[in-house]
Amino acid sequence: MEGFGVHTSMWTMSWDRAGCEKAVAKAVSYGMDFLEIALLDPPRVDAAHSRKTLEAAQMRSVCSLGLPQEVWASRNPEGATEFLCAALDKSAAIGAEALSGVVYGGIGERSGQPPTQAELDNVAHALSRAAQHARTLGLAFGIEPVNRYETHLLNTGWQAVEMIERIGADNMFVHLDTYHMNIEEKGMAQGIIDARDHLRYIHLSESDRGTPGAGTVGWDEVFGALRAVGFTGGLAMESFINMPPEIANGLSVWRPVASGEAEVMDNGLPFLRNKARQYGLI
Amino acid sequence: MEGFGVHTSMWTMSWDRAGCEKAVAKAVSYGMDFLEIALLDPPRVDAAHSRKTLEAAQMRSVCSLGLPQEVWASRNPEGATEFLCAALDKSAAIGAEALSGVVYGGIGERSGQPPTQAELDNVAHALSRAAQHARTLGLAFGIEPVNRYETHLLNTGWQAVEMIERIGADNMFVHLDTYHMNIEEKGMAQGIIDARDHLRYIHLSESDRGTPGAGTVGWDEVFGALRAVGFTGGLAMESFINMPPEIANGLSVWRPVASGEAEVMDNGLPFLRNKARQYGLI
Amino acid sequence: MEGFGVHTSMWTMSWDRAGCEKAVAKAVSYGMDFLEIALLDPPRVDAAHSRKTLEAAQMRSVCSLGLPQEVWASRNPEGATEFLCAALDKSAAIGAEALSGVVYGGIGERSGQPPTQAELDNVAHALSRAAQHARTLGLAFGIEPVNRYETHLLNTGWQAVEMIERIGADNMFVHLDTYHMNIEEKGMAQGIIDARDHLRYIHLSESDRGTPGAGTVGWDEVFGALRAVGFTGGLAMESFINMPPEIANGLSVWRPVASGEAEVMDNGLPFLRNKARQYGLI
Amino acid sequence: MEGFGVHTSMWTMSWDRAGCEKAVAKAVSYGMDFLEIALLDPPRVDAAHSRKTLEAAQMRSVCSLGLPQEVWASRNPEGATEFLCAALDKSAAIGAEALSGVVYGGIGERSGQPPTQAELDNVAHALSRAAQHARTLGLAFGIEPVNRYETHLLNTGWQAVEMIERIGADNMFVHLDTYHMNIEEKGMAQGIIDARDHLRYIHLSESDRGTPGAGTVGWDEVFGALRAVGFTGGLAMESFINMPPEIANGLSVWRPVASGEAEVMDNGLPFLRNKARQYGLI
Repeated sequence: MEGFGVHTSMWTMSWDRAGCEKAVAKAVSYGMDFLEIALLDPPRVDAAHSRKTLEAAQMRSVCSLGLPQEVWASRNPEGATEFLCAALDKSAAIGAEALSGVVYGGIGERSGQPPTQAELDNVAHALSRAAQHARTLGLAFGIEPVNRYETHLLNTGWQAVEMIERIGADNMFVHLDTYHMNIEEKGMAQGIIDARDHLRYIHLSESDRGTPGAGTVGWDEVFGALRAVGFTGGLAMESFINMPPEIANGLSVWRPVASGEAEVMDNGLPFLRNKARQYGLI
Repeated sequence: MEGFGVHTSMWTMSWDRAGCEKAVAKAVSYGMDFLEIALLDPPRVDAAHSRKTLEAAQMRSVCSLGLPQEVWASRNPEGATEFLCAALDKSAAIGAEALSGVVYGGIGERSGQPPTQAELDNVAHALSRAAQHARTLGLAFGIEPVNRYETHLLNTGWQAVEMIERIGADNMFVHLDTYHMNIEEKGMAQGIIDARDHLRYIHLSESDRGTPGAGTVGWDEVFGALRAVGFTGGLAMESFINMPPEIANGLSVWRPVASGEAEVMDNGLPFLRNKARQYGLI
Repeated sequence: MEGFGVHTSMWTMSWDRAGCEKAVAKAVSYGMDFLEIALLDPPRVDAAHSRKTLEAAQMRSVCSLGLPQEVWASRNPEGATEFLCAALDKSAAIGAEALSGVVYGGIGERSGQPPTQAELDNVAHALSRAAQHARTLGLAFGIEPVNRYETHLLNTGWQAVEMIERIGADNMFVHLDTYHMNIEEKGMAQGIIDARDHLRYIHLSESDRGTPGAGTVGWDEVFGALRAVGFTGGLAMESFINMPPEIANGLSVWRPVASGEAEVMDNGLPFLRNKARQYGLI
Repeated sequence: MEGFGVHTSMWTMSWDRAGCEKAVAKAVSYGMDFLEIALLDPPRVDAAHSRKTLEAAQMRSVCSLGLPQEVWASRNPEGATEFLCAALDKSAAIGAEALSGVVYGGIGERSGQPPTQAELDNVAHALSRAAQHARTLGLAFGIEPVNRYETHLLNTGWQAVEMIERIGADNMFVHLDTYHMNIEEKGMAQGIIDARDHLRYIHLSESDRGTPGAGTVGWDEVFGALRAVGFTGGLAMESFINMPPEIANGLSVWRPVASGEAEVMDNGLPFLRNKARQYGLI
């Protein structure tokens, strides 16, 4: 994981053959270093096709997901482990470098209480075993803290670090996201500073999940801190436009947050790349 | 509504006699111009006691609330109207200047879809009748857009303006909140600019609902825009510390976001007041 | 004055025939609404050629200057008046809409003391007469406060407003510059708020006079405040690259502040235009 | 050098016995860790009295200066060396930990051209010899890049680093200043990132040299970057109020930039300390 990539939500929320081919072609046309593939339904992914399409385009990839409710790790660590191991197998088959995201639970999982020790124990158990499996596959394995409304388990960089250090697997990493950091961290630099020893991936996402550069995220704080801590991992632009209703619901996006793909790619992408270059990150 | 006040959550989430007396005494000791009273359970409030306590301290007040699920306006406009009229009566009895907040629904209300025309019609119907009742009581009546996770109905300043202009009641006003704006608006100034014709109240709340000045909110953008649009309404500091579990759940706050009251009052309050003075707002 | 333009320093510091033709062609190619012409040596400008070239391209223009030392208004108000009237005549002959800039003195003028009443009287005298002459020509006449090192006379928006209100000429206007505001104002919004009643022109210049978007200027504060005060004047991008030594000396630029024209035009210009569009200013 | 201190300009510009006693008492009363003493006229300082006063109060100190014109290092390296060695002797006699500031030239020194190789050779020669002398005295020796108007020699963090690495003296350090960085660096974090290997001291000064927190400096970028690079050096608040005319002239401050000492100490000091604590720097 290194360089500048993009989440496939820009072009498809469905990683079928058509979605894969479209996204890879688009990613190439925009000079992306890698694609982040949303592995929403791992069994249905045609890994051989994905691998072939990615390799033909010399496009690297990272897979990401959130867990379905029946296998949330806090409640069903065995189910989560099984799901994650299958997703890791699929990621390896695709040729991805890592699996990351809300691998510890559901997007929207909230018990109504602070996380209990038992919940965190369950999460640690599942992640530990999945990390071991990832190591056998040569994959890195990331956890992405998300905001308080999307999970009650891990909201900040330091909580992710605590989980990783508890598990002690050196192929695990922290995956931050500026959208969530903007809500949870005490300053945009703080999550980066807290997570620095394990930080290998970051979603560059605007405060409203729309066009990067046109919201409230303090981008100079983000990029300055990334440079200052010596970040060399992957930078992945993420915006959510033209979503199917079930995804919009999961993310609680009720209105268009950008006028369309053109605004994000023509305004937001150059903005982020210029900032990344300004701070020597690409 | 004018000057600098504070939400009573700083000192009590329970507006009973003891909570009222504590909060009023504290507000006086910090030189507040007004108190925002969380009217979570209007029938149980001893209005005569509140009024007497407030008047004795020469402390002005504003009441705020969110609707219980059984009377969400989008689904039960008659129930909402009835609840709001009773809350307005109570607010008037207390001697408050306004009732505001998520008066159009529940904190956490989400249908899973964008708001439908029927939902917005129901909301408009209930708010219109409540606004009429408020006028007979000499009360202003505000609506507070909140972030996408706390409602699917009204997330931005311009959505609140659309609702108010549709209803056409001149005692209605927009009530912004910097915590929600930080997630929803395209720049902190934008919500203020969009809402300017109806903006009479703003919650000054940090990005993590902790200590003002120690998060990601762009305060100079907030105060500069307030000054530039000629804002003369109420500025209400809001932080959430030491909450009972049911409130923490409603707000999805799973960890302490400040070390305690002292940090908010000794660091956050002077920070906000200095900024408000710098921009000539108080 | 309205729309988005650029200072000719981007392409030429010498407004001779070749410089004029190059700058106009470039401005057209970048879709500029107007050009700001540096009128460093008014008598030598071939106004008929400039007018013809500008009109052929349908390019509007604004002229700007600083006074030569022998006619600094603080010391030689008659000389300043004469120089300004000649420059106004030339501006009118070119077909420009306004003359603006450090029309009250020299770039680098510093007495070593705060401005005296006598100096300000002299400035007011010269500007008043020049403004009268501008009115006969149908020209607007602007004054640009600059930072403490470039003048001791007018450093802030409110000082410019005081001067204009003292003179009372309604064709005079305040011309701000974000580079100077970043040093002098108490927040980027403050100068805009202070100058709002007379503000008709603003230089969009980065904190180091390099590529807009790659410095310390708080652009969201700038554009948010411009929108909030209802600004409808001219937005002029200004960067200083590839300057001849005498200009670099006047501006105290001792190193390249951008890699070249391409960086400013390919990164800085889209950045500023996107922000201006985001806030509804163009 | 570590902890939080203040430049004596807050209380006196004259380091005579009365000035020393006043400043030390004030620094104690505000809980400062150290004082920065302006060594404007080294021979006239009563070092024994300063040392005794500082030691009695257990107040640490750092000395700073700019060179008089007759001994600017770029033109008169021998004179500069002699002046600096004497100032170092005096600093040692006072019991200071370091001598720093514009030790390479005059505040306001500008040749009108970019620095020549010969000028930089002269500067390096003088600084090298002064650094050797400082080492014999057990003193650290810092250089402070200042903005383009105050010198043409060293304006940015990386220029200061280049000079130090050329000289190769391990008791030399970079001394940054947020006021100057705000004009010269490509983002507030950039100078800190560039200077990180040699950065041991920083002036915390607002964009207009007035009250910290009430200007345009991006303080979260500053403190976040300091934390991220592992800064453990001295943080020195610097504001310029109530200056004698000759100092105001040197700094080109033509109007009061704060209402007085109270505003700086009551608003600016807590602002900076809270930010420093937020980022774990004190």
